[in-house]
Amino acid sequence: METHPSLAVKWSCPDLTIYAGEVTIGEEDRNKMDSKKRKLEKTRITEAACALLNSGGGLIAMQMTNKSEHPVEMGQDLEKSLRELIMSPNMQAFFETKQQEDQFYIFVKSWSCRPEDGSTKPRICSLGSSLYCRSITSKVAMDSREAFEFLKDKKACIKYRPTDDGAPPAKIPRAMCQNSLESNPAFEIFQSKKLEYGQCLLFSESTSIEFKQFSTKHVQAYMKNIIPEYISAFANTQGGYLFIGVDDKRIILGCPKDNVDRDSLKTVANETISKVPVFHFCSSKDKDKVSYETRVIDVFQEGNLYGYLCVIKVEPFCCAVFSEAPISWMVDKEKGVYRLNTEEWVRMMVDFGPEASSKDLSKDFECQLSLCNSPPHCRPVYSKKGLQHKVDLQQRLFQVSPDCLKYTPESLWKELCSQHKRLKGLVKQQIRSFSCGLLILYRSWAVDLNLKEKQEVICDALLIAQNSPPILYTILGEQDEQGQDYCNHTAFTLKQKLVNTGGYTGRVCVMTKVLCLSSQNNIETNGGSVSPINYPSSYNLANIQEMQDLLQALVIVLLNFRSFLSDQLGCEILNLLTAQQYEILSKSLRKTRELFVHGLPGSGKTIIAMKIMEKIRNTFHCETDSILYICENQPLRDFIR
Amino acid sequence: METHPSLAVKWSCPDLTIYAGEVTIGEEDRNKMDSKKRKLEKTRITEAACALLNSGGGLIAMQMTNKSEHPVEMGQDLEKSLRELIMSPNMQAFFETKQQEDQFYIFVKSWSCRPEDGSTKPRICSLGSSLYCRSITSKVAMDSREAFEFLKDKKACIKYRPTDDGAPPAKIPRAMCQNSLESNPAFEIFQSKKLEYGQCLLFSESTSIEFKQFSTKHVQAYMKNIIPEYISAFANTQGGYLFIGVDDKRIILGCPKDNVDRDSLKTVANETISKVPVFHFCSSKDKDKVSYETRVIDVFQEGNLYGYLCVIKVEPFCCAVFSEAPISWMVDKEKGVYRLNTEEWVRMMVDFGPEASSKDLSKDFECQLSLCNSPPHCRPVYSKKGLQHKVDLQQRLFQVSPDCLKYTPESLWKELCSQHKRLKGLVKQQIRSFSCGLLILYRSWAVDLNLKEKQEVICDALLIAQNSPPILYTILGEQDEQGQDYCNHTAFTLKQKLVNTGGYTGRVCVMTKVLCLSSQNNIETNGGSVSPINYPSSYNLANIQEMQDLLQALVIVLLNFRSFLSDQLGCEILNLLTAQQYEILSKSLRKTRELFVHGLPGSGKTIIAMKIMEKIRNTFHCETDSILYICENQPLRDFIR
Ligand SMILES: [Zn+2]
Ligand SMILES: [Zn+2]
Repeated sequence: METHPSLAVKWSCPDLTIYAGEVTIGEEDRNKMDSKKRKLEKTRITEAACALLNSGGGLIAMQMTNKSEHPVEMGQDLEKSLRELIMSPNMQAFFETKQQEDQFYIFVKSWSCRPEDGSTKPRICSLGSSLYCRSITSKVAMDSREAFEFLKDKKACIKYRPTDDGAPPAKIPRAMCQNSLESNPAFEIFQSKKLEYGQCLLFSESTSIEFKQFSTKHVQAYMKNIIPEYISAFANTQGGYLFIGVDDKRIILGCPKDNVDRDSLKTVANETISKVPVFHFCSSKDKDKVSYETRVIDVFQEGNLYGYLCVIKVEPFCCAVFSEAPISWMVDKEKGVYRLNTEEWVRMMVDFGPEASSKDLSKDFECQLSLCNSPPHCRPVYSKKGLQHKVDLQQRLFQVSPDCLKYTPESLWKELCSQHKRLKGLVKQQIRSFSCGLLILYRSWAVDLNLKEKQEVICDALLIAQNSPPILYTILGEQDEQGQDYCNHTAFTLKQKLVNTGGYTGRVCVMTKVLCLSSQNNIETNGGSVSPINYPSSYNLANIQEMQDLLQALVIVLLNFRSFLSDQLGCEILNLLTAQQYEILSKSLRKTRELFVHGLPGSGKTIIAMKIMEKIRNTFHCETDSILYICENQPLRDFIR
Repeated sequence: METHPSLAVKWSCPDLTIYAGEVTIGEEDRNKMDSKKRKLEKTRITEAACALLNSGGGLIAMQMTNKSEHPVEMGQDLEKSLRELIMSPNMQAFFETKQQEDQFYIFVKSWSCRPEDGSTKPRICSLGSSLYCRSITSKVAMDSREAFEFLKDKKACIKYRPTDDGAPPAKIPRAMCQNSLESNPAFEIFQSKKLEYGQCLLFSESTSIEFKQFSTKHVQAYMKNIIPEYISAFANTQGGYLFIGVDDKRIILGCPKDNVDRDSLKTVANETISKVPVFHFCSSKDKDKVSYETRVIDVFQEGNLYGYLCVIKVEPFCCAVFSEAPISWMVDKEKGVYRLNTEEWVRMMVDFGPEASSKDLSKDFECQLSLCNSPPHCRPVYSKKGLQHKVDLQQRLFQVSPDCLKYTPESLWKELCSQHKRLKGLVKQQIRSFSCGLLILYRSWAVDLNLKEKQEVICDALLIAQNSPPILYTILGEQDEQGQDYCNHTAFTLKQKLVNTGGYTGRVCVMTKVLCLSSQNNIETNGGSVSPINYPSSYNLANIQEMQDLLQALVIVLLNFRSFLSDQLGCEILNLLTAQQYEILSKSLRKTRELFVHGLPGSGKTIIAMKIMEKIRNTFHCETDSILYICENQPLRDFIR
């Protein structure tokens, strides 16, 4: 895993924040910059944006090197680069900027390709695909969308190619059969033993022929630099010949023998090509690399050896050939900003989920979250046919009504209020300005998000209210230094899951607030503000529709479990618990320490038991080795281990 | 209709040929050209290619200004421009080039968007959409694909917007409601009576604010030039303010009063905006133009009037606003090369056929040719459910078998051979080198293609054979000067219909050959060659699959008729005759002059009668006024009239 050298992930707010260092902001000042420095800054910010788009969204924080009292625009070069990243001029859909004194922020929403666009955008954003193709006499770098279409075609092509009992599928694409490299006019030159300096070739550049000539003495560096892109272009198109030592006018000049020797020319070409990454959709897996042959041909001038012509013959490839690993980034609070490798990148680009491949699934299950327009990390979510939909589940568990702010579950609210005298007043004061929404109470949200519980927490309350962002209140008995960290960590995990598991595609950040029953004046630990950075008002939930969308994502977060079908289908899919299963889980754990799960075969006992074991681990801080569990169920045991 | 000033349509060969005049070919020589001239040439060739792509394909013929003995590549600028036109680096899919002495040819295949690409390319190619949008501080020209997605979104948006009993749908898109132009910081300046020269504005450029400043004295020309693109960008996004007279640093400079007066500033702005083309998907039709307001504000310097600040406030638009008519071309042998107007262009761009809108259609009819991957001029084709498919029809009427060259219909061949002694030998000699395919005989192909019959023609024979392009033989009794013209015209019409009606998406040109029974040596009128231009071998039918595809297109050409459903659905769709109906039509007309069509109601009597009337008109060269027909059938009468 390649970690980014200059992008740091910050911990100070409940969102994924990348600190991009010092940056000059504004068209006018950026135009005055040294162009190399400007390009470096631009790349850094684009990489940060790419990582956030691919990982659920977040915030890029920059220190402005230039001062401005008034709000400033970013600068044309930055805008252009971000526009290319999202493959659309509609920047407003993913980015929002804000200047706060000398800090400049770019708020980044999670990537998702809207279905209105026909879903032909890839599932992730990239700065470059490193995939090339030939377009008559040019080598063209495929942009993200072209790369996506190329990969889709290749994948589809392989899928429908017949294989007889495990034999590897035919390697040569249809279109190529009639067009062998041996019938190319370049083949004769490729087979020559010697050539004359200054001779003019009788064929011109074409889809399968490229001439290169150079004046540098650093032949090896030059070759390492140019070869990978041409190999990718020829192999991805219909194969061809790369001539190194022929100029644009088709004159053979060769590489002078003083600059390089015969063997090293061949060695550097072969070594460079051996490093070119490939990806197979077909059964060849990684073992088969690009098929090629390098020949170094003597070039004579007036009877004396002048130098060498290097010709590389590249065969068309069954699948995809890259010049280097594709350029795409992700971010993770633990791992930081890291670059995807070729394999990960291709899998994320062409991830469509199991819809098309599995007829069984569509017979027995209903799709609740498909991949075609959900954020990059999402897995497909299904519920069993005939059971409740995510919409029904949200209506049953988290119903919102206009002009009404409700507490849920009511029983827990009453129980908590009877245990803690000041709780009622404290919470009421906080939420008095909101008139429509839900306050969702939990003994601890952390447990349900698979985080460790904090003993001092009386309860966590998640406010989903109109004209407000979601707010997570952590209510403590006594002041606690770690309270804000706990609250931030829980809120951050929740937000990530809402997007990356729940598939929420709106703008979202879960704000945090720590409340303390013992203190007279509840001044929040971060100085009165919910977040140190004022989020734009577009992060507020504007209406009931947006609240319901978010609550449906929450249903998926809380009720999903990995389906046993995942192994069968070879791709991870999630199922949903029923409301009944969820209610058992959310109530019974603290009331009793003995719980028998009984029911008919197939009614979901194992699933419930597994979820309970997971909660026990989080609630009581157990290490895996220190739980004694007795079961006769194989998946349950494997999961807990 | 705007006809192209410098592109001529030639008549010398049986394909659509555009003569693009003198052109410099080859990277090296093009780089030496005057850049203005080079750009003009590039545009001319790209426009010719656009016209051919949109009209069924054809040939661009150029006279090379430079000489080269060896085959040359086109030149990077031409390649790039053609690549942008087809929205893909895969140039080989649509273009092929050939140099023949000092003539340079570009063979252009008909445009079609492959379904593998997810069908997200528009149905036609364009050099520019003339559609703009705002992308933060930039005005961005939408490329053809972005324009397509924008139009699709707008169309979908209108469709699902509720209307109460004929009332026009709400004009303001959803996203705009929260973001009125009156709450914009620029609104205060817009309302000012006077401003101070050198004053700095307290807001910066944004999605809805643009500052323009200029040093030219030709204020009016400048404004006419810049305004349309900004109007389009603001109106298509979320509206905004265009400030003319504010520099990049937000300083109010104004237009000096010496260069322009108050009234003319306002007049030129308003006149320019009134000419901006719009297209409505909603019920507003053409009556509603862009909503805007122009204000000219006095700028004072030290108490004296210095000049004027012009501010244009543009409201967001319900549908699409263009800076000028989109840039896209079509070609027609009669009309020449012509530019589409805005209305035609939008309709062709977003033409999806009736699939999505009509459930009745999918219940009773089966789709034989959908629009999603067929050439631009195609109409959807259906057959009644339960009747034969185009594949079945082709198998029944035009079956091809490996290693066998068949004559069809056999009865006609026998009849012709018995009437004309030398016919058998003459035809056999022509087709002796082909071993697999079909020779389709007709008394006259012209009649079936809705052209006028030529009395001197004994028969027309269409050869569809492997390793050959389709060839149309016209067999005459005596030498005839107009024979080749007739054959060319018939072959050209057939080729156009195979692509534009039949939906054939392969490379195709129908070659011609006139044979004469009376002459001893059958030297073809064009000098021994089937076509004056040697088409590349990719125009040959490579295998049985390609022959079947072409024959299925032929089935649609010969058996289609305009469906009565067309009027109901508000878009033209075609139905197919049954094989039986077709056989009645193709046999009975010459044998008898009296024909009674009888059958059960709904069995297709009217359709047959209409097709027969059409044939009578073509066979006997009748003018519409000179046919006496007696019928009690309304559509039949209307059609014949
Ligand atoms: Zn492979
Ligand atoms: Zn409209």
